[in-house]
Amino acid sequence: MNGVDFKWSGFISEYPVNDLGSDAYAFIEILYPLCRSITGAGTRQTLQLVSQEIDLNVSEVATGTQVFDWTVPEEWNIRDAYVEDMAGNKIIDFKLSNLHVVSYSMPVDETLSKEDLDSHLHSIPEHPEWIPYRTSYYNKTWGFCLPENQRKSLSDEQYKVYIDSDFKQGSLSYGECYIKGESKEEFLLFTHICHPSLCNDNLSGISIATQLAKYLSSQKLNKSYRIVFAPATIGSISWLSQNQDKLLNIKAGLVLAVAGDSGSLTYKRSRNAGSYIDRMVLNVLETSGKEFNTLDFSPYGYDERQFASPGINLPVGSLMRTPNGCYPEYHTSADNLDLVKPEYLSDTIQAYIDVLNIFDNNTTFINLQPYGEPQLGKRGLYRKTGGLQDIEESILAKLWVLNLSDKDNDLLAISIKSKMTFKTIQCAAEELFQAGLLEHVKE
Amino acid sequence: MNGVDFKWSGFISEYPVNDLGSDAYAFIEILYPLCRSITGAGTRQTLQLVSQEIDLNVSEVATGTQVFDWTVPEEWNIRDAYVEDMAGNKIIDFKLSNLHVVSYSMPVDETLSKEDLDSHLHSIPEHPEWIPYRTSYYNKTWGFCLPENQRKSLSDEQYKVYIDSDFKQGSLSYGECYIKGESKEEFLLFTHICHPSLCNDNLSGISIATQLAKYLSSQKLNKSYRIVFAPATIGSISWLSQNQDKLLNIKAGLVLAVAGDSGSLTYKRSRNAGSYIDRMVLNVLETSGKEFNTLDFSPYGYDERQFASPGINLPVGSLMRTPNGCYPEYHTSADNLDLVKPEYLSDTIQAYIDVLNIFDNNTTFINLQPYGEPQLGKRGLYRKTGGLQDIEESILAKLWVLNLSDKDNDLLAISIKSKMTFKTIQCAAEELFQAGLLEHVKE
Amino acid sequence: MNGVDFKWSGFISEYPVNDLGSDAYAFIEILYPLCRSITGAGTRQTLQLVSQEIDLNVSEVATGTQVFDWTVPEEWNIRDAYVEDMAGNKIIDFKLSNLHVVSYSMPVDETLSKEDLDSHLHSIPEHPEWIPYRTSYYNKTWGFCLPENQRKSLSDEQYKVYIDSDFKQGSLSYGECYIKGESKEEFLLFTHICHPSLCNDNLSGISIATQLAKYLSSQKLNKSYRIVFAPATIGSISWLSQNQDKLLNIKAGLVLAVAGDSGSLTYKRSRNAGSYIDRMVLNVLETSGKEFNTLDFSPYGYDERQFASPGINLPVGSLMRTPNGCYPEYHTSADNLDLVKPEYLSDTIQAYIDVLNIFDNNTTFINLQPYGEPQLGKRGLYRKTGGLQDIEESILAKLWVLNLSDKDNDLLAISIKSKMTFKTIQCAAEELFQAGLLEHVKE
Repeated sequence: MNGVDFKWSGFISEYPVNDLGSDAYAFIEILYPLCRSITGAGTRQTLQLVSQEIDLNVSEVATGTQVFDWTVPEEWNIRDAYVEDMAGNKIIDFKLSNLHVVSYSMPVDETLSKEDLDSHLHSIPEHPEWIPYRTSYYNKTWGFCLPENQRKSLSDEQYKVYIDSDFKQGSLSYGECYIKGESKEEFLLFTHICHPSLCNDNLSGISIATQLAKYLSSQKLNKSYRIVFAPATIGSISWLSQNQDKLLNIKAGLVLAVAGDSGSLTYKRSRNAGSYIDRMVLNVLETSGKEFNTLDFSPYGYDERQFASPGINLPVGSLMRTPNGCYPEYHTSADNLDLVKPEYLSDTIQAYIDVLNIFDNNTTFINLQPYGEPQLGKRGLYRKTGGLQDIEESILAKLWVLNLSDKDNDLLAISIKSKMTFKTIQCAAEELFQAGLLEHVKE
Repeated sequence: MNGVDFKWSGFISEYPVNDLGSDAYAFIEILYPLCRSITGAGTRQTLQLVSQEIDLNVSEVATGTQVFDWTVPEEWNIRDAYVEDMAGNKIIDFKLSNLHVVSYSMPVDETLSKEDLDSHLHSIPEHPEWIPYRTSYYNKTWGFCLPENQRKSLSDEQYKVYIDSDFKQGSLSYGECYIKGESKEEFLLFTHICHPSLCNDNLSGISIATQLAKYLSSQKLNKSYRIVFAPATIGSISWLSQNQDKLLNIKAGLVLAVAGDSGSLTYKRSRNAGSYIDRMVLNVLETSGKEFNTLDFSPYGYDERQFASPGINLPVGSLMRTPNGCYPEYHTSADNLDLVKPEYLSDTIQAYIDVLNIFDNNTTFINLQPYGEPQLGKRGLYRKTGGLQDIEESILAKLWVLNLSDKDNDLLAISIKSKMTFKTIQCAAEELFQAGLLEHVKE
Repeated sequence: MNGVDFKWSGFISEYPVNDLGSDAYAFIEILYPLCRSITGAGTRQTLQLVSQEIDLNVSEVATGTQVFDWTVPEEWNIRDAYVEDMAGNKIIDFKLSNLHVVSYSMPVDETLSKEDLDSHLHSIPEHPEWIPYRTSYYNKTWGFCLPENQRKSLSDEQYKVYIDSDFKQGSLSYGECYIKGESKEEFLLFTHICHPSLCNDNLSGISIATQLAKYLSSQKLNKSYRIVFAPATIGSISWLSQNQDKLLNIKAGLVLAVAGDSGSLTYKRSRNAGSYIDRMVLNVLETSGKEFNTLDFSPYGYDERQFASPGINLPVGSLMRTPNGCYPEYHTSADNLDLVKPEYLSDTIQAYIDVLNIFDNNTTFINLQPYGEPQLGKRGLYRKTGGLQDIEESILAKLWVLNLSDKDNDLLAISIKSKMTFKTIQCAAEELFQAGLLEHVKE
């Protein structure tokens, strides 16, 4: 690009974020009942529903495939599961909540003593009414999850347990939506799809990612975008393993999860603090006027762990609301349709679009009148009366852009140094560019 | 210079700062009545009065001269102006306060309705007794400034307005005082001279600059000094444009304005935070034991904007008291002889001289006995009895100078790291140099 | 070293720190009565007692030897000293406290007026019951130290003063304990031995250094250790001057003094903040969970001054408890056996061993499975059930080691970034190394 043909993307225009939040919530309601895991029908059905919304390319990675240090496990499917008391009552029933069964439970059909059953039960003493979510992907066993109160009330001597599940040579599924822009430089959005009926973790992520993909598809874009829907850990590792040729184009990325609760936005930095994604996200949060939290990188959390592994080392952060493990409803039946609300989803979507807008529009200009300030007044870009106490934000933004457009500062750097929003700086740059005061730097 | 012929300047000696503050105040009283603007007789007369105090070289830049992106405007002069009510009373009279007329007002002589007049009036609702200061240099119009209370009391249907001003092919005037020292490396002091009867902004700056020039002229100097008196914006741009060959020698500089009010000293950093001027000024303020404020650079304010433009990019900060726009009297008739006091002027002068002393005397030594501490005692530079709880500041300063005189640290760096005043470090270095323990590093 | 033959030292094993503290206190009790100075019998006897505990190599530096800018002074010895009143009572008696005589006092035997005597007396008005400690090594004089209350009560017209001391061509003594490990890279521990009956300053240092030397001698070590016992200032300068060939191997060091009082641990940074020793010590303190203080480097204090001189410039910090000069009992008779306690000595010893453990075991690994996380579960290094809120510290430590083992981070860097103790990181690395997931980087 050069000064003559440089064009802003249409991105800066207003977008119906509230609508996107409502749409995201409605989609969560649809996805909620499905029993997802790292493989299996529920996960595949979830991708199917997403693909009705956006242009999704679904891949299957066969059981036994070596993905880096891991092997894709057998595909797990479950049809029914319950615990019956001596009177024949189904006191725990998978059909009432898919959280009741430990994910990847082996099939079982036997009667056992209360003590033996108890060694297969999971509950949370601190939250006696909630069903916990537990998994045992790589350690073959079976188990049931139930409220602590119910567990305490078990008084029969024996119980019948029944799990109708199976493991087979199948595949792990992931979906990818690629939205091409002018440049092949791309932004990676990753969201995990392996959790069953849990809304914040991570139907919020799946649903917001879907809305963002839809939104991006409607824009004229400078950069390209890749949105990956995959199981956590084994899914991101599979995707990375099978798409190593794509990694070079990824200039920034975010892991999108736990994004719909009432907490403030939280940004977890990428592995190399101060990376491009860190600067973009922190700029959005710092100029938002809203409260937010930040976390330093740590190698625990969600799939940022994989993107941050030393052999991959991509600039991928995580923008969420209350971090995983930090809200009481986390990984329990209380992470339901009440915990997540359209307005929180909207707030997250707004921040993501602001970040994506920076990624799409950030560029560098040179001030063509660098000796002293150019005379803005003769170009109609300055106020007419002098001597006033304050200066308008839009003029101040122009002065910042002119002062820092010396090749060393892109618009993001100017936004950071001026503490003004990227959009304010972007608008100022656009006016100055139109007035012939800036030249675009070829990249 | 080398170890043999190195000499300190006489600068470190005591100076009569209180006297300088009183002299500065007296000079403000003389300059106060003149009607200054960016051009014209009042400004020229101001330079004339300054030239009676110091060796000032006045330049005239003709109307129409291209100065970077700007053009020197026509010269504006005003002789009389008033608003008369229907009874023939001069209710607003330029002769009572030159703030009453918007600077660069066009001539006018007509009778108009109260409503039409009102669209040419300026007042400040928050301060109903004060006359604001307004300008319209590049947008041809006319206007009157008056107290809000008076504006509200206007009740006649018609008013006669009269402004006897003219625009002509003339020139813009600036003055320069150059004080030559041993080295051609120079310090730039810039103060704006375009404001009419406003004391803090900026008769304080003009008057302190005059005192500093006088003071510097009386010293044996290592470095050179350039003190520029010019209108704001168009003046600094004109000076820069016409003196580009001088810029290379400027190693540091300060914009001197709003320097006589009761507020603490405020330092606004130069464009590249951590520059030489930033380190000098912050060192003075941090070791002063007094409260002070700092501001990060921003491209709004006074003429530091021009020195900081990307094509100029000089290490010029701004050392002031309450920043422009941050005190209620700013740009009003309340910025008068009561707002500014000799003691505040003295305090500002003290800080400036401390900064200039650093600039003049800062240099680098090498410790000639770098292995372990040299034995100061045998040279009479250490106390005689050991075991005491505390150490004298003068000895500690010597230990700092010896420890850090390894070529990498100049005296300013030693002052910063030791948190001791530059003068304390300078005295310690002088004693050690006399004792043969330091060698001067050729520059 | 390479991945095959890499071995941890035995250092990480538990050690009986409480016992070491008790032993250190007991040794202080033995050393307390001796009259030490920068030369002479008491100092030599102190080294003799230390050499009964550890393998100590004692050197003598002859009077008159040039050591950098200094000259080793005559050896001073004292046998008796007192002040007698007119009635013949010994009102000040060296035999009751060796603090009573200014160190390096000349011999004297005369009767003088109360006034003349007073000019040779030292006391502390703020602490009227305590005897101060004073020295006059390089300024030949004599003097007595006494409580202020006693000084005030002196009422006789004349006093007899007697000091049976002498100066002779002798030597200055220092001791060195060198403990050889696999690598010749060494850690320097320096403690000063010139103070008489003062417990915290510095029998605590001498005694802890002795215990550490004993402890290190019992370990299988990767690195080497040099522990120097020498007089302050002239002693460290003599040692440096006579051992310049050894300095190249010193990779880190600590000056050990004032180490047994009730104050929190205090770390005074080395000359170049952020040096290896700074990072090790601050890591130990920051992960200790205990309060601690830090001081920036300054060229005053103890022998770190000499190690930090620009020609020496070694990474030597100072880890102490309450800094010299900062507790009221400093350099007085109140720095006695009550001020120092075994538990404080233990606490200091613990911190030193933690630092030495880092020095001995710090090394760098490479993650052999750097693409995504390696599957810890299949190696028995991960928990079996997923979905839980928290993660075990031992697993998190493994994730940190894996994530940062990219050649750029040694274990200390990983400990600092993870905010986990070095030992936790070291244990995690050991498990991962045993599991074949890490390779050792040859140094």
